[in-house]
Amino acid sequence: MNKSIHDIIFTDKPASVLEEKLLGLQPSRVAVLVDENTKKHCLPFIEKALPHDHVLIEIESGERHKNLNTCIEIWKALTNQAFDRKGVMVNLGGGVIGDMGGFCAATYKRGIRFINMPTTLLAQVDASIGGKLGIDFDGFKNHIGMFREPDSVIISTIFMDTLIDREIRSGFAEVVKHALISDSMHFEDISRNLWHKQNWHEVVPHSVTIKENVVIQDPQEQGLRKTLNFGHTIGHAIETHYLNHADNPLLHGEAIAMGMIAETLLSSKKCGLSQDESQSAISYLMDNFPLERIPEKFFDAIINLTIQDKKNRNGKVLSTLLQKIGQCAFDIELSKEELYWAINEYNRKISAK
Amino acid sequence: MNKSIHDIIFTDKPASVLEEKLLGLQPSRVAVLVDENTKKHCLPFIEKALPHDHVLIEIESGERHKNLNTCIEIWKALTNQAFDRKGVMVNLGGGVIGDMGGFCAATYKRGIRFINMPTTLLAQVDASIGGKLGIDFDGFKNHIGMFREPDSVIISTIFMDTLIDREIRSGFAEVVKHALISDSMHFEDISRNLWHKQNWHEVVPHSVTIKENVVIQDPQEQGLRKTLNFGHTIGHAIETHYLNHADNPLLHGEAIAMGMIAETLLSSKKCGLSQDESQSAISYLMDNFPLERIPEKFFDAIINLTIQDKKNRNGKVLSTLLQKIGQCAFDIELSKEELYWAINEYNRKISAK
Repeated sequence: MNKSIHDIIFTDKPASVLEEKLLGLQPSRVAVLVDENTKKHCLPFIEKALPHDHVLIEIESGERHKNLNTCIEIWKALTNQAFDRKGVMVNLGGGVIGDMGGFCAATYKRGIRFINMPTTLLAQVDASIGGKLGIDFDGFKNHIGMFREPDSVIISTIFMDTLIDREIRSGFAEVVKHALISDSMHFEDISRNLWHKQNWHEVVPHSVTIKENVVIQDPQEQGLRKTLNFGHTIGHAIETHYLNHADNPLLHGEAIAMGMIAETLLSSKKCGLSQDESQSAISYLMDNFPLERIPEKFFDAIINLTIQDKKNRNGKVLSTLLQKIGQCAFDIELSKEELYWAINEYNRKISAK
Repeated sequence: MNKSIHDIIFTDKPASVLEEKLLGLQPSRVAVLVDENTKKHCLPFIEKALPHDHVLIEIESGERHKNLNTCIEIWKALTNQAFDRKGVMVNLGGGVIGDMGGFCAATYKRGIRFINMPTTLLAQVDASIGGKLGIDFDGFKNHIGMFREPDSVIISTIFMDTLIDREIRSGFAEVVKHALISDSMHFEDISRNLWHKQNWHEVVPHSVTIKENVVIQDPQEQGLRKTLNFGHTIGHAIETHYLNHADNPLLHGEAIAMGMIAETLLSSKKCGLSQDESQSAISYLMDNFPLERIPEKFFDAIINLTIQDKKNRNGKVLSTLLQKIGQCAFDIELSKEELYWAINEYNRKISAK
């Protein structure tokens, strides 16, 4: 078993674990970052572990607040309290809180320590693992950021009860992705049930372990870590486009599920994924996720967005595709024509449902 | 001799060295960050080393532009060119360009590679060594930033000819500081001449080596690196206050020279620095630097600013003081009364000149 690159704890007693971790870190002061939802629903679970003079920073929930303006609010809140470099920040929330709170902590006075307490399934199995921090910028997702590990990640399924179904299902997309790229047995296991019947006490740690094993081998995304990008070349572009242009933005996992279907179709075309396995992956995704038809007028914009993907090089769109379920290849170049074909074919598939 | 933590090259041929370094890094694209001064006076020295499709980013010169708004300009310029993660940024300029350009590079798409080409004496002997990146925020200097080493630092005294005297003298303050904290022989050497008579071909590499040796032993400023803060507890606060409140801001080195006098006085009071050595350090500083009398109405604000210093802990002001020339102690706590005394005594000293 590989050594953890950071300290990930699964617990039913998040307050006790937080208390113990803070005792170890000996902070001069503690700040807690929440949004209106986690303040109401999650903070009560951990409040007793916080020193009485902690600084509570509340931001508005939602991806559209994951930007520099909110960072400025957070940095100012710390500054106004003369928060020093020995302080510790606790990020209590989903991916937005973890990514942005981590970024603010890692850049405040050139970096203070932070603990992530992911409260959504998506953040638990994905965002909080692997040290990717950042914010959206100029219409691009996670465009400004850095790599840095939290001092601890405290994961508790207690917080799952605070989530609406749509959030849980969105997070489940990353669970499916982890299985598809590297663990066919796990795909078999989870695909016996739909998302709402999963045993999260088993599924969450298993999914975290898959991601952790990849990240340990390639923390800076030079190679292997790119496999985690499956579904994201197209999915990320769809998510970004809807964020900027649609009235009702998609959740991350919803967009990634759409991207995974398009990229599974490309996997058969370009990487030898068998028709049987392709069908099995696509069916399971179609059974679990609400899949929007993508209007043709969005095609060009979405394809242009794939070009801005951080994993690209020399202006070429590079993707991760499945060779079989549980095995994939990365840095597969996609032409504009192939991207167009994949999105069109995705539409055809989901219409035939 | 300790191993360099990064690649520092002293050269009279900056274009050739840059060309060679870029060849080694194999960037997908090159961006060059300049201000109106370095564009005019320094860029011609290196232009032939740049690929024809390089991205030139020009910002306004001066510390008051070292802020998030200018970062946004830089990030947008990179984004508009679809600059990818394999690109390399060259920061051609003084401390502002190096600190802010490095910060923008280290956070763009979670970090691209960068080369610093410091063009001021201050940046050559100080800012470009040691991986401190950042910007000013909310009235505080270098309040937002991080630690990351450039891929290379290319130092050429050719650029010294492009500087006005005031800039060179300002940079010389850090040369004096390096000698005072850790190299009494070097202090003897440089103090034979005033700033404008120094042999920069010897002084610059020597001063860089002093700083490098400290940084290698303590990159993240947990202990020893704090010695580089001599003169900065009070000097930084003076600089920040003048930046926000005076018509004609002080240059960094000018403020640090003032801070070094105040902190030398404190060194005699608290750390056993002999009267002879104190007098010798103060005289040399007084002979070289333009020293402003600090109006009493500024005292409180300056003392309050020292409390925000990043090296502090638990709200206590911690400073570095000399025990003798070439040797110092760090984490020395200063009370408000002592700070008040030191600034007052500084005024008395320089009036007696």
